[in-house]
Amino acid sequence: MIDHSSTGSGNVTRERILEIAEQLFHERGYGATGVATVLRAAGVRSGSLYHFFRGKEALLLGVLQRHLTLLRVRVFEPVERTTDDPLERVFALLQLYMRNLESSGFTLGCPVGNLALEVTDTIPTARVPIDRYFDTWSSEVQRWLEAAGGRLPADVDRLALARMVLAVMEGGVMQARAHRALGPFTAAVGQFRGYLESLEVRARRERGDSGQSAGGEQRHPDPSRRGINGSAWRTW
Amino acid sequence: MIDHSSTGSGNVTRERILEIAEQLFHERGYGATGVATVLRAAGVRSGSLYHFFRGKEALLLGVLQRHLTLLRVRVFEPVERTTDDPLERVFALLQLYMRNLESSGFTLGCPVGNLALEVTDTIPTARVPIDRYFDTWSSEVQRWLEAAGGRLPADVDRLALARMVLAVMEGGVMQARAHRALGPFTAAVGQFRGYLESLEVRARRERGDSGQSAGGEQRHPDPSRRGINGSAWRTW
Repeated sequence: MIDHSSTGSGNVTRERILEIAEQLFHERGYGATGVATVLRAAGVRSGSLYHFFRGKEALLLGVLQRHLTLLRVRVFEPVERTTDDPLERVFALLQLYMRNLESSGFTLGCPVGNLALEVTDTIPTARVPIDRYFDTWSSEVQRWLEAAGGRLPADVDRLALARMVLAVMEGGVMQARAHRALGPFTAAVGQFRGYLESLEVRARRERGDSGQSAGGEQRHPDPSRRGINGSAWRTW
Repeated sequence: MIDHSSTGSGNVTRERILEIAEQLFHERGYGATGVATVLRAAGVRSGSLYHFFRGKEALLLGVLQRHLTLLRVRVFEPVERTTDDPLERVFALLQLYMRNLESSGFTLGCPVGNLALEVTDTIPTARVPIDRYFDTWSSEVQRWLEAAGGRLPADVDRLALARMVLAVMEGGVMQARAHRALGPFTAAVGQFRGYLESLEVRARRERGDSGQSAGGEQRHPDPSRRGINGSAWRTW
């Protein structure tokens, strides 16, 4: 038997199988996708698949690893190219998921979120890579929140805030898919923006540069920064 | 053929089938649960099941209807008995899901959330009852938020805020299940509490009864109310 795994064409075959399996698991779920369907869609013989993956569970683990490996280049890098503002990056990230929902007719949400609820208990080996994906996703958002520095109060836990962003995304995707419209997701994100703005207001107050000392409430104390938030604020 | 559906014993059988199917769909998912398994666990013959449900999809729709019918008595009524404070009810609700996660070893989250991601696309008839469940859940929370009256600013959309609570719950459950620990869920809920507190502070300011006019920031302007939040605040 030839060891394809060390050859260029072997790697191409392995990647092709993973790519197809990823797509099918995302569209139909893990349980509903048969190995035969993967083989047919990838145009490979079963020997090729079993050469690289001992079975369907190994294929799932390969797909989860692929999601983790490509997370930065697929999700976080495109978002970072849209804006340098670390807080606006959070909203650009949420908007990326909204766009994917809309362009897929509300079928494709977060590929790992789907698998998380389907296989976490039934396929124990899948739980750890799913958890690692959520950890990595949250850490990336945490990094942006840390880059915002003094714009957020010092006592706000950046990782906890990132965990909330992930919850809003996954919970928003779930509601939008059932609703076949972005409404519930948009509503949750709008509330999250309200929270972030209240944190920015408090940070400014605590820094003492609110420019007001008579106690009058001012929700948007820095009109020069409204430009950044303006367009998104209107829809969210 | 005897029409069991109009008899007492027929109703008992139907309820028993639904109860078992609900439990199995929750524990294993819809796709991974065979009709034969439901029959065995319920101790009924296939004729009895097909008398009430045309097939597995009809069984799923019956289970979803049951979740909706029992939502008030299973979820919202027990929460309402724990506290009269409408805002604390929101946290008691989130804590109910946390307790269920912990007591099931992080296997049982929201039964409808699981099904939402699994069957929304593949079983089109299931989408509408799932959407209705989320609508009803959000409306119940909205009702509490409306009961809080002037404790929240008038311009805050109560339904949008309820949609955020649902997102935090579903997204928090998902992360906690993958993590096999409440940490990420607790973090998201703690941030939600921060948001709600900031809304309460703003509402007080806008009502003009903040008791301070020198602009000094006061995160908890009403110490008499800390008692209500106290215990939950420490852990969240």
